[in-house]
Amino acid sequence: MKIAQEELRFFTIQIFEAMGCNRQHAALAADVLLKADLRGIDSHGVARLSGYVRLWEKNRINTNPVFSIEHETFTTATLNADRSLGLISAPFGMDIAIEKAKVYGCGFTAITNSNHFGIAAYHALKALPHNMIGIAMTNASPLVAPTHSTQRMLGTNPMCYVFPAGKHKPMVVDMATSAAANGKLEIAQRKGKDVPLGWLQTKEGHDTSDPNGLKNGGSLLPLGSSLDNGSHKGFGLSGVVDVFCGVLSGANYGPWVPPFVAFLEPLANLPGQGLGHFVGAIRVDAFRKADDFKHNMDQWIDAFKNAERKSADQPIIIPGEPEFEMEEIRAIEGIPLHESVVQDLQQLAQKFSLKF
Amino acid sequence: MKIAQEELRFFTIQIFEAMGCNRQHAALAADVLLKADLRGIDSHGVARLSGYVRLWEKNRINTNPVFSIEHETFTTATLNADRSLGLISAPFGMDIAIEKAKVYGCGFTAITNSNHFGIAAYHALKALPHNMIGIAMTNASPLVAPTHSTQRMLGTNPMCYVFPAGKHKPMVVDMATSAAANGKLEIAQRKGKDVPLGWLQTKEGHDTSDPNGLKNGGSLLPLGSSLDNGSHKGFGLSGVVDVFCGVLSGANYGPWVPPFVAFLEPLANLPGQGLGHFVGAIRVDAFRKADDFKHNMDQWIDAFKNAERKSADQPIIIPGEPEFEMEEIRAIEGIPLHESVVQDLQQLAQKFSLKF
Repeated sequence: MKIAQEELRFFTIQIFEAMGCNRQHAALAADVLLKADLRGIDSHGVARLSGYVRLWEKNRINTNPVFSIEHETFTTATLNADRSLGLISAPFGMDIAIEKAKVYGCGFTAITNSNHFGIAAYHALKALPHNMIGIAMTNASPLVAPTHSTQRMLGTNPMCYVFPAGKHKPMVVDMATSAAANGKLEIAQRKGKDVPLGWLQTKEGHDTSDPNGLKNGGSLLPLGSSLDNGSHKGFGLSGVVDVFCGVLSGANYGPWVPPFVAFLEPLANLPGQGLGHFVGAIRVDAFRKADDFKHNMDQWIDAFKNAERKSADQPIIIPGEPEFEMEEIRAIEGIPLHESVVQDLQQLAQKFSLKF
Repeated sequence: MKIAQEELRFFTIQIFEAMGCNRQHAALAADVLLKADLRGIDSHGVARLSGYVRLWEKNRINTNPVFSIEHETFTTATLNADRSLGLISAPFGMDIAIEKAKVYGCGFTAITNSNHFGIAAYHALKALPHNMIGIAMTNASPLVAPTHSTQRMLGTNPMCYVFPAGKHKPMVVDMATSAAANGKLEIAQRKGKDVPLGWLQTKEGHDTSDPNGLKNGGSLLPLGSSLDNGSHKGFGLSGVVDVFCGVLSGANYGPWVPPFVAFLEPLANLPGQGLGHFVGAIRVDAFRKADDFKHNMDQWIDAFKNAERKSADQPIIIPGEPEFEMEEIRAIEGIPLHESVVQDLQQLAQKFSLKF
């Protein structure tokens, strides 16, 4: 089934309101989820709505948060999100970073005591209208084993960088630091299809193409997949995200990041609060004229689009390009929802006496 | 052959002085190269000395640079390196970033019109004594093809992040954004040994394990190696480094980055000046008490060291750990030099009427 974004947005706002969010927060949280659905990141859109509801039911999400700045300098802030939806705390943190960047050149907010924040790109993209480079990262519940280990120690810990361009769409690098994001695995599970070797390992540490390998106690592999091909780099990158988001903010990190699924309890003796994000903004014209930068970005993009192709019918893809194209299509044609997501939303409607 | 670091350092200083560097610059450049040799990054130490000399002979390196700050804000600077050795301009840029961070919380310097800067870790590590997080990246001459392409468009573009710890050594993530660094390939070539599939492709875009694949017109692959295993992420990361270092600074980028080997001429109609770096420093206590951060870093490191092992005799390796261990060993036992490097240094000695 396909649904117009306005309709899906209104429903999503109602669900967040039913959870106790005020209208402004509900609209913002819905906007973050809808952005994922519009951009084709189906795993991070309304498909997660019931997950947020279950965390709220477990009292792990506070829908009436009082944000507080625990520490601050000219260019930095540590924001305690008071167990808020990350969908709300991350844009707030990004606004702080942007205001600081306007005055001082750059600004960064480390966010602690938060929950999952949706797609990283939503937050980083906020920098664009200000001619700033946007940065957003988050840690996440452990699914990824470091090189040489069989233990789930890290989340898929995404990092996102957004660079403004001129005539071209901005360059948006938004990537899990694991070989494959969990969403891709879920799609393969649904279809009962094998996954490529290099995505995950069994509990014993053997390569597997079984899409249920994770469910059966295995772990995802860091970007690079094998030591030979640089999985220690993926581990390192994931560690960078974990330290910025968890250790620097005062949130949990590594194996202690609380699980997204509500049926799993957080570990005992947590070293921090909730999970963490790190967002930032850097003014382009703090380094050079924004127009000159954009002109060169256009040239960069043109050069890569025109690079020699491996096969004539497969163009080189600029990071972020497919998502912008998808956004234009789905804004007009509506958002396709998988049958299981429709059922999920119908159950939510029933729970809150809403219509879907 | 093994050589004491003091002896190798003195020789290296003399070579840089023979190129026209003043004593202070020569000592700094030698320190950067020696740090690579001490840390076991043999490809980036004195093995490159003759390469710098050849670039200088081609008048592509200016050993009497006048650094100028082209643009500046409270937290940012754009430094024109005047065709200097990157070995000198990058530490200078890092000093600027650190001074800004002391006052404003963080500082970043984009460096244009520069040359290769040695190991990224040297520059990022300068942040440590100030209880700051250090960041250093550089673009480099094109050897890596983006996903779906057969053309060398990107350098191995390394990124480095350094985080202070307490009782443990700092965490140092210093990595090429390609599946394998060129140095590893050179070692395989020297030994005539096949390399793992996933490191490079032939001119036609086929996977190959031939260590001479690059020499024969092929290209290195981005981290992730194949589309299935996320090479588009490695491409994206490499792009991030290229934009920060090249586009933001006003240096060259992508296919226009001037080659390190002096026998190749830079392309015509360059869009920028030389190659570029991006270095930065972020004060830990701009977010939380440095001691609390370090305490949690220690706990992070302990947790990962103690994670379940795939095999009992292979410990989990914390990023940066092997290099610190190597540094301690080589500081005492001396630096082993490959025969070809010894010959190289002997030829340099002869050229400049020095003793080696």
